[in-house]
Amino acid sequence: MNHPAPAAAIRPRRPFPAELLTALQAAFGDRVSTAEAVRAHHGRDESPFDPQLPDAVVFACSTEDVRTAVTLCARHDVPVIPYGNGSSLEGHLLAVEGGVSVDVSGMNRIVSIDADDLTATVEAGVSRKTLNDALRDTGLFFPIDPGADASLGGMAATRASGTNAVRYGTMRENVLGLTVVLADSRVVKTGTRARKSSAGYDLTRLLVGSEGTLGVITEVTVRLYPQPEAVSAAVCAFPSMGDAVRTVIETIQLGVPIARVEFVDALAIRAINRHSNLALAESPTLFFEFHGTEASVKEQAEQVQSLAAEHAGSGFAWATRPEERSRLWNARHNAFFAMLQLKPGCRAVTTDVCVPISRLAECVVETEQDLRGSPLPCPIVGHVGDGNFHVAMLIDPARPDELAEAERLNRRVVGRALRMGGTCTGEHGIGLHKMDFLIDEHGADGVDAMRAIKHALDPRNLMNPGKIFSYTA
Amino acid sequence: MNHPAPAAAIRPRRPFPAELLTALQAAFGDRVSTAEAVRAHHGRDESPFDPQLPDAVVFACSTEDVRTAVTLCARHDVPVIPYGNGSSLEGHLLAVEGGVSVDVSGMNRIVSIDADDLTATVEAGVSRKTLNDALRDTGLFFPIDPGADASLGGMAATRASGTNAVRYGTMRENVLGLTVVLADSRVVKTGTRARKSSAGYDLTRLLVGSEGTLGVITEVTVRLYPQPEAVSAAVCAFPSMGDAVRTVIETIQLGVPIARVEFVDALAIRAINRHSNLALAESPTLFFEFHGTEASVKEQAEQVQSLAAEHAGSGFAWATRPEERSRLWNARHNAFFAMLQLKPGCRAVTTDVCVPISRLAECVVETEQDLRGSPLPCPIVGHVGDGNFHVAMLIDPARPDELAEAERLNRRVVGRALRMGGTCTGEHGIGLHKMDFLIDEHGADGVDAMRAIKHALDPRNLMNPGKIFSYTA
Repeated sequence: MNHPAPAAAIRPRRPFPAELLTALQAAFGDRVSTAEAVRAHHGRDESPFDPQLPDAVVFACSTEDVRTAVTLCARHDVPVIPYGNGSSLEGHLLAVEGGVSVDVSGMNRIVSIDADDLTATVEAGVSRKTLNDALRDTGLFFPIDPGADASLGGMAATRASGTNAVRYGTMRENVLGLTVVLADSRVVKTGTRARKSSAGYDLTRLLVGSEGTLGVITEVTVRLYPQPEAVSAAVCAFPSMGDAVRTVIETIQLGVPIARVEFVDALAIRAINRHSNLALAESPTLFFEFHGTEASVKEQAEQVQSLAAEHAGSGFAWATRPEERSRLWNARHNAFFAMLQLKPGCRAVTTDVCVPISRLAECVVETEQDLRGSPLPCPIVGHVGDGNFHVAMLIDPARPDELAEAERLNRRVVGRALRMGGTCTGEHGIGLHKMDFLIDEHGADGVDAMRAIKHALDPRNLMNPGKIFSYTA
Repeated sequence: MNHPAPAAAIRPRRPFPAELLTALQAAFGDRVSTAEAVRAHHGRDESPFDPQLPDAVVFACSTEDVRTAVTLCARHDVPVIPYGNGSSLEGHLLAVEGGVSVDVSGMNRIVSIDADDLTATVEAGVSRKTLNDALRDTGLFFPIDPGADASLGGMAATRASGTNAVRYGTMRENVLGLTVVLADSRVVKTGTRARKSSAGYDLTRLLVGSEGTLGVITEVTVRLYPQPEAVSAAVCAFPSMGDAVRTVIETIQLGVPIARVEFVDALAIRAINRHSNLALAESPTLFFEFHGTEASVKEQAEQVQSLAAEHAGSGFAWATRPEERSRLWNARHNAFFAMLQLKPGCRAVTTDVCVPISRLAECVVETEQDLRGSPLPCPIVGHVGDGNFHVAMLIDPARPDELAEAERLNRRVVGRALRMGGTCTGEHGIGLHKMDFLIDEHGADGVDAMRAIKHALDPRNLMNPGKIFSYTA
C-alpha cells in the first residue's frame, strides 16, 4: 500500500523491552502474540493508511486482564491501544509509537439485560448485532448502527451513530455508564443505570469519543428502546440532490419523529443496484423508516410523502413486510462495500462531515459540484436527518496522485462544512486523519483544554498515543 | 438562620487584596459592588444554608467582562463564583473561601435564534422563560423547565432538567455548545450547531454539570423543538403511591412518548390545593401531558388511561384548553412554594434522587414509609418518568433538632437510592451538600479522576472552590 499516515502521526516508536514481553507471557500465556500476521491484523483499521504494527497483541478476557496489561505496559512506558472489531475509519488502531494492542473482542459477554429499565450492560467486545440478537425475545432493541458490526466499546470510543440517530441519538445520548481502565491502572465505573444524574463531572461523556486516549473501555451500559409496534419503510427518488435534501430539512423542521432518513446519490444507487441486485432509479434517493403505532406510522408517512411530492419526489415505494424492509436496509447498510466495487481494486478514502440542518442542501450541492470536477468516483451517502453525510473517494492504492487528489477533496469537503458552522466529523472521529481540522474547528485554545485533560489522566501518554491531537509526555 | 454549610465546606477565606478591588473598580466602575446587601444577596441560593458572602460582586455585561474579572481575580489568587438567577438548591453560590461573585444576569441577550436549525444561542443570564418568550413567534420552544425561572448558564452548570425531560432530555442532551471563560482567562467555544459530532473530547458535556468549578459559562447554544400540533393534559388520582408509580413504569416500558408525567403525593396535593385554589383529590396523583399530532395525542392518552385504570387510577380529568392546562401545570410548578406554606415560617431541605425505573415504586414506597415516621412534614414530588423524585423536608430554621432530623432523612433517602443502583442527585447537583454521597456513588477513584480534571483546568482552585468535591490547590 501507499498511504502513509499524516505527518503529525509519524512518531518515533518507543522501545519494547524484552522484560515486558516476558511479563505479558507470564500473565497471559498463549493469549499474548507477537506473530507478524496477528500484529498486522491489529495494526490497521478500515482507513486507507498503511498499517503500523503493535509490538504485541494481548487477547483480554476480563476487566482484570485489561488492568494487568495496562499495569505491565505502564511499568515499561509502553503504549496501549484498545482493539475491538477493527472497523474504525480514521486510523485509530495504528500503533504509531508501537506498543501493545489490547484486543477486547473476546470480552463478549452480555453482563445484564435489564428489560424493565430499558438498559443493558455488555462487555466492550460485544458487537451491536450480538447485542440485538440477545435482545430478540425482550421486545427491546439497541438502535445505534454504524456501517460495520462494530464493538460497543469501539462505538463508545468513537462516539458512533448511524442511521437511527435522527430519532434515537448517538452513543453520546445512549451510553449511561462505562467501566474503564485508566492509565494508572485504576478501574472506574462512570454513571449508574438511572436515566439522568447531576452527580459530578460527566466522566461518561468525556470518555465517549475519547478514542482510547484516556483509558480502555471494558464495559458499556446502554439505553434500550421498545421495538416499535409498527414499522414501515419507503424509498423515493428525486430529480436533484437539492430536492431530496430539502425534503429532509422540512421533515425535521416539522418535527416528524422519523426513525431513519438516508440520502444516497445516483452513483451510490448504481453501486447498490449492482451489489444487492436491486433496480432502484439511478437518481438522488431517500430511504425512509417510520416507527410507532400503526396509526402514527401511517400519519408520519403521509406527512413525509406530501413533503416529498412538493419537491418532485417520485415513485414512493413502500416496504412494509419485514423481509422487504430488511432487503432495502441491508442494501443501504452494504453501500460502503457496494461502492468499493465501482472501481475494482480500489480503496476508499472516506470523509464524514455534519452541518446545521439549514445549510445541508447548500453543503451537499456545493460538495457534489466540486466532486464532479474530479477524476475520482466519489459517491455521497448520508444520515441527512442529522445534517451528516459521507463522501467515499475511490482511489487506486498504487497511485499517489489519486491519493493526493482524494486528500485535496477531503480538505475541501471539511473546510466547506466548517465554514457552514458544522463539524469535521459527525461520527467517524478524528483518529490520525483529522487532527488539523480539529484545531480549525475548536481553536488552539479548545484543543489545549483537551490536551490538559489528557495530561491529567494520562501524563505519560500511554493510551493510544498520536491520536486526536499532538501530545508529548 | 441556623444551617451552617457541611464541615467539608468550612474553609479558610482567602485574602481579598485592596489592589484587586481597585483594579475591579477601574475596570467596571459602578458595576462592582461591595455593599453588604448586594454581597448578602449573592452569597446565598435556595438551599437552607447560612449565606457566605463574597468579598465583591461584579455585574458582567459580556464575555469580555467575565474574562476581565477572571484575569484580575487570578492575578490575586481570588476565587470567582458565577451567579445567574440565584436559584440553585445545594449551596452552589456560597462564597466559602470568599472571592468575587460574577453576576451574569445582565448578560441577557438572545444572540441568535436559528429557527431553521432548531437551535438558539443565548447569553448565560437569559432565563428559560425569557428564551421561550423570544421563541413565541417561531413555532418552536425550549423544553427544559426546572422549578425556578433559572438562567440558561446556571441550568447548564447544574445539568438541570425538569418536567419535560422524560421526552426531551436534560441539559446534557440539549446543550450543543458553550462559550466559557476558563481559569486561565482563555475563552473557549465548545461544540458547533451541528446536531452531532465526533470531533475530540466532549468539552460541552464536561462543562455541563461542572457547577462553575471549571470555568464561567457566558453563552449557551441549545436545541429547540417544534411546538406540538396538539397538546393535552390530564390529572389522575390513585389509591396508593405504588399504583401511581407502577402506571408510570408501564408507560415508559411500553414506549409511549409521553411529554410529561409528574408524581405528587397526597400531602403535596393538599398544599397545591390551598396555594392554587384547586380541589384535587388528596391522594397520590399523576399529572400527564401528551404532545404530538391530534391523532397521536389521542392514542397516547388512551394507552395511558388504560394503564392507569389497571392500577385503580380514578377521575382521569382532562385539560385540553391552553388556559386549563396552564392552570394545572402552574399549580405543579408552584408546588415547591405551595409546600412551604404547609408549615408557616419553615425552610425546605430538599433532596433529589433518581433510580432505574424498575426500582422506582419500591424506592418511593420505602421512602414514604420512612418519612411517615418523622415529625417533619415531608411531601414527595417527582419527575417519575425519569425515575427522579424529590422530598422537601420542612424545618423550623430556628430548631437545630429539626435540621438534624432533615439531614438524617436525607441520608436515608440518598442511601436507599444508591443501594437501588441510582444516583444521589437527578438534577440539583452536588454543591456543598452532597459531596460525601458523590464518593459513595462514583467511588474514591472516580472522584479522583474528576479532581485530576479540575487540577488540569483550574490548578489554583479559582473557580467556585469548595463545591462538588474537596480539592486543594
